[in-house]
Amino acid sequence: VTNTQPPIVLLVTSSQPVDVIFTPDALRVLRARFTVIEISNDSPGGEFDKHLPDAFAIVGQPDLPTGRLRRATKLKAVLNVEGNFFSNVDYDTCFQRGVHVLGCGPAYAEAVAEYALGLAIDLARGISREDRAFRIGMERYLDAGSADALHLRASDIGLIGFGNVGRVLHRLLAPFAPTLRVYDPWLPASVIEDVGAIPTSPDELLQASTIVFMLATVTAESTELLDRRRVNLMRSGSRLVLISRAAVADYEAVLDRVAAGELLAAIDVWPEEPMPSAHRARTMEGLVLSAHRAGATSASYTKIGDMVLDDLTLIARGLPPARMQVAARELVGRYRNRPAT
Amino acid sequence: VTNTQPPIVLLVTSSQPVDVIFTPDALRVLRARFTVIEISNDSPGGEFDKHLPDAFAIVGQPDLPTGRLRRATKLKAVLNVEGNFFSNVDYDTCFQRGVHVLGCGPAYAEAVAEYALGLAIDLARGISREDRAFRIGMERYLDAGSADALHLRASDIGLIGFGNVGRVLHRLLAPFAPTLRVYDPWLPASVIEDVGAIPTSPDELLQASTIVFMLATVTAESTELLDRRRVNLMRSGSRLVLISRAAVADYEAVLDRVAAGELLAAIDVWPEEPMPSAHRARTMEGLVLSAHRAGATSASYTKIGDMVLDDLTLIARGLPPARMQVAARELVGRYRNRPAT
Amino acid sequence: VTNTQPPIVLLVTSSQPVDVIFTPDALRVLRARFTVIEISNDSPGGEFDKHLPDAFAIVGQPDLPTGRLRRATKLKAVLNVEGNFFSNVDYDTCFQRGVHVLGCGPAYAEAVAEYALGLAIDLARGISREDRAFRIGMERYLDAGSADALHLRASDIGLIGFGNVGRVLHRLLAPFAPTLRVYDPWLPASVIEDVGAIPTSPDELLQASTIVFMLATVTAESTELLDRRRVNLMRSGSRLVLISRAAVADYEAVLDRVAAGELLAAIDVWPEEPMPSAHRARTMEGLVLSAHRAGATSASYTKIGDMVLDDLTLIARGLPPARMQVAARELVGRYRNRPAT
Amino acid sequence: VTNTQPPIVLLVTSSQPVDVIFTPDALRVLRARFTVIEISNDSPGGEFDKHLPDAFAIVGQPDLPTGRLRRATKLKAVLNVEGNFFSNVDYDTCFQRGVHVLGCGPAYAEAVAEYALGLAIDLARGISREDRAFRIGMERYLDAGSADALHLRASDIGLIGFGNVGRVLHRLLAPFAPTLRVYDPWLPASVIEDVGAIPTSPDELLQASTIVFMLATVTAESTELLDRRRVNLMRSGSRLVLISRAAVADYEAVLDRVAAGELLAAIDVWPEEPMPSAHRARTMEGLVLSAHRAGATSASYTKIGDMVLDDLTLIARGLPPARMQVAARELVGRYRNRPAT
Repeated sequence: VTNTQPPIVLLVTSSQPVDVIFTPDALRVLRARFTVIEISNDSPGGEFDKHLPDAFAIVGQPDLPTGRLRRATKLKAVLNVEGNFFSNVDYDTCFQRGVHVLGCGPAYAEAVAEYALGLAIDLARGISREDRAFRIGMERYLDAGSADALHLRASDIGLIGFGNVGRVLHRLLAPFAPTLRVYDPWLPASVIEDVGAIPTSPDELLQASTIVFMLATVTAESTELLDRRRVNLMRSGSRLVLISRAAVADYEAVLDRVAAGELLAAIDVWPEEPMPSAHRARTMEGLVLSAHRAGATSASYTKIGDMVLDDLTLIARGLPPARMQVAARELVGRYRNRPAT
Repeated sequence: VTNTQPPIVLLVTSSQPVDVIFTPDALRVLRARFTVIEISNDSPGGEFDKHLPDAFAIVGQPDLPTGRLRRATKLKAVLNVEGNFFSNVDYDTCFQRGVHVLGCGPAYAEAVAEYALGLAIDLARGISREDRAFRIGMERYLDAGSADALHLRASDIGLIGFGNVGRVLHRLLAPFAPTLRVYDPWLPASVIEDVGAIPTSPDELLQASTIVFMLATVTAESTELLDRRRVNLMRSGSRLVLISRAAVADYEAVLDRVAAGELLAAIDVWPEEPMPSAHRARTMEGLVLSAHRAGATSASYTKIGDMVLDDLTLIARGLPPARMQVAARELVGRYRNRPAT
Repeated sequence: VTNTQPPIVLLVTSSQPVDVIFTPDALRVLRARFTVIEISNDSPGGEFDKHLPDAFAIVGQPDLPTGRLRRATKLKAVLNVEGNFFSNVDYDTCFQRGVHVLGCGPAYAEAVAEYALGLAIDLARGISREDRAFRIGMERYLDAGSADALHLRASDIGLIGFGNVGRVLHRLLAPFAPTLRVYDPWLPASVIEDVGAIPTSPDELLQASTIVFMLATVTAESTELLDRRRVNLMRSGSRLVLISRAAVADYEAVLDRVAAGELLAAIDVWPEEPMPSAHRARTMEGLVLSAHRAGATSASYTKIGDMVLDDLTLIARGLPPARMQVAARELVGRYRNRPAT
Repeated sequence: VTNTQPPIVLLVTSSQPVDVIFTPDALRVLRARFTVIEISNDSPGGEFDKHLPDAFAIVGQPDLPTGRLRRATKLKAVLNVEGNFFSNVDYDTCFQRGVHVLGCGPAYAEAVAEYALGLAIDLARGISREDRAFRIGMERYLDAGSADALHLRASDIGLIGFGNVGRVLHRLLAPFAPTLRVYDPWLPASVIEDVGAIPTSPDELLQASTIVFMLATVTAESTELLDRRRVNLMRSGSRLVLISRAAVADYEAVLDRVAAGELLAAIDVWPEEPMPSAHRARTMEGLVLSAHRAGATSASYTKIGDMVLDDLTLIARGLPPARMQVAARELVGRYRNRPAT
């Protein structure tokens, strides 16, 4: 490697194909600024290990145990393009070494927040339910099918989790002027108050809100955060948007209340994917059913590539990254999100 | 009628039942401030004509030809609670006499705008379509069902009509930072530019927009504003939200393009209501079907009553109304909206 | 007058010179669309009376008693370009005849609101006071001169009057996330609540607010609305922006509290203009002194001309005006604003 | 130190007195949650060194060379409460050790942004200049003193630097709907575009903007970023708000153009503080003079204490800080801001 060669970027393409996350333009610029080496097989002793000592950055999430990191003496950044941090990386060594550990969560935030808002309006107004009725000649005109209709305007809305998605959703909800309650155990009250929301315990949030967005990531602490007791705290007639990960809620408890006509729910994430074909959820009128689609748009994927390109460029210029999420040393080991398959 | 009796308000309840548009609280205050006379039959010579000479205001839309208005010497306001101005009133005489002619359009604006946004996100992301697929075990996980997904963020959005609904929708769309094109023949360019939108001809709007909201009211000029030629101007892959009145569009032209897979459309208003049971629209996957539901919420209806109460109170205090829409002398005779039935 | 001649507009230029309110472009378009007749002397029997029977619209505020209006059989609109409605017009006849009576208040709103915000920040932070100190070598660095500094962020702000200026100011203040209290006797509580503000009595507003904007227009009722009793309700250390008309406040009461170091005030309107040269206000450190400058910008003046052009064009097309303020029949006779001289 | 003792926080109070940055409430909570040791003299071998091995966090900015950090084996965070990062800390060792290095810049952002906006409106409308004129009986009523008045509404505004202050200012400027150009060499274009602004080179920004805010921090690269050549690029009649640090501009070049009547400028930071008593700036009518006051409010100072308390609490709970600015490894050594004295 001579001085004049652009920095080497190892593109480990097992999970997200290169042409899904990079537009042709982004890929062209990436190749102009960096020496891009695509590696499809990162098994030990292979091509990945060969290039590791020269790598300036790794894009993807290959196994990076201590030994490998020790050999990657020029490494400045690991850019995770899958949305979750898994345990196959020795993060402590990265932090000690000053290797940036970056995640692509912000790339999905806009897509997920828009989708969550769409689901909430659907639940508030019965859009998909009445569309189904129309198709079998059972449509109900005017107010006949709107007995349970809600306006978002000036409503009581609760956000469980206030990370990337919560912040975008907060922005999208602002013109509805809701009373917004937020629970996020990683944030002090002041941060929530500063955006005009009310920091609230989960129990109080569930009791006070007409529309609840479940946005929490999975950790040991948040597993079944929405357990049966809490599901039962929700107000009769309220609406639930489940859009982060299935593990944060007791699904049977949610479905029981939907079956009883006490809740309406939109569910985008499921304990098993695909769901069993005979599962009772498939026939419930009180559900909006969605197949893990909230963030899965082409525009989200290519935004990942754009972020990777921007941040690699900054880091190569001796500047800190500005677009991807900087992994927090304290949190990176806590996430228990399973990959979407 | 003595001096001490509160002003007489004739409540002509044929179309909107009193308890639908007034909450119990609003009705109680109305009765405390005014002498409320409910009249269910306003046929000539009946109770309505008996009270007319003493009436301070009429709520509802009974026939008010010149002769009746001549007898209503104390009349200060006619408050239309049906959302449309029909031709059974001698509006010219009202204006000459200084009788306020007020409409309840603003009461529906929030409900319609929220619904329109919900329909647009549904079209952008396939929410109801994929819900239907899920129910028959055909759900597509992650990006499999999102090949045609769009983000509203930074998209090209067109509004045809910029009245009550358009203005609320503009507010709801603001955080998506769209490039917003607006066509409204009743407004100068400056008014549209002042809200950060681009005044645009219908043809250009249809060609440039990814998502089009049809919000125009029906007049002689706007009938089939969206005719076949203009429908065919819409970009392939674009989305259409039809939410004002059916007469403004050529439905068969719209359905032809949806059938061809070139457009996705959400339709809330129909040439006939109810629609024929065998109509082809009922089976099109590219449609979101809705039965004239956009404004038909309980919260919209009771907002009418609140507006009536507020404006009657202001007028009785010698002040101009502040909440209902003041009918424009130039426009009141132009509307051709048919009543929703 | 033949059919083909464009409608006649009488431009009565006594108060606002034509080239102040019209840009060259606007004037050119006006002349292209209308037959513009400039009249500098509108005394009885003169040129004005000669053209009156043919006039489509009058721009300016000549005397328009019943007799003149009777002769103006083609008149469709009177466009007041001075900001105040005076009693030299028979408004009742205008309304009966369906002649639009339009005011240019909205043209000034942006300029006044920006200026009011600038005055408020000056009062909050001592900008002009410390600038004066700097000029005499008495500047105080860092916090030395900021013992009384306030942030607007999350502060208690009161608006007395919620008309054109109040609405723009509300928009400018929104990102400061204040607790906003509003008093406006012409509006129902719902209208104020709908913009996220708190409808409040004058006394309560003055007691609760840290920054008070006096925006009320002068009527019989609002004269000395801010009388000595109410001035004395203001919190010690609070700030007052007086920017509508002098008659709404007891100036001596305000100055007494400023002199006592209890209030800071910015005053743009004065009981006499020019103020007596030896008036005590001129030397008070607790004042920001301003010579009726809030709305007096070139951009405001030419906005009047743009509004006149737009609304004349709409009216000539058979549409209602959309930019100027439509005078309310109930209010037009109440204003007691003296002209600014 | 037993297990049960709360974590030890060393409060090194040389620069910012404890009771200035902590409200009594915050200090009470701090003492309840932590073992707070106030240290006024941190000279080598003194009390500071004695407690260092037990310290969980250091609040203040004592010298922290490698040797001291080596002894601070329990150290988790250094919280700088002075707004600038100086070179008396071995930052590299902090990062390697995983010691959080936090700055209080965000505490000042609101105060500085509000002040900057106030200065800009003053420059746009001549508030302090006309206040001075009024005090010597030379006030000019109405438009007489407003020949050079500008509206912020829809104006061309440039921000040089888009850090904490720039982001708040962006929010405050949003309702003015400016065309906003931003130069920040540490950010990719996408970040600037994402907030609706236009990424622009310094030269182009200066040529295109009517109002320029100089918000850049001092680094080797930004010293005299606004040099004479660039000052001369500014449009005649434009306005300059200098509010970050003096070193980023060629003051004589700015003053020359102000003296020539070509620019109006508000200056809050000076090459020397205090400025020489006979300096020509003190008499220029085209300046708003301000003595390094932008951030120096009591509310800013106590916000530092609140942030310190919140972030110490989070870190003690094993969570990342959420309010103070996390120092970037790449940038912390670059700042050349001199302390305000």
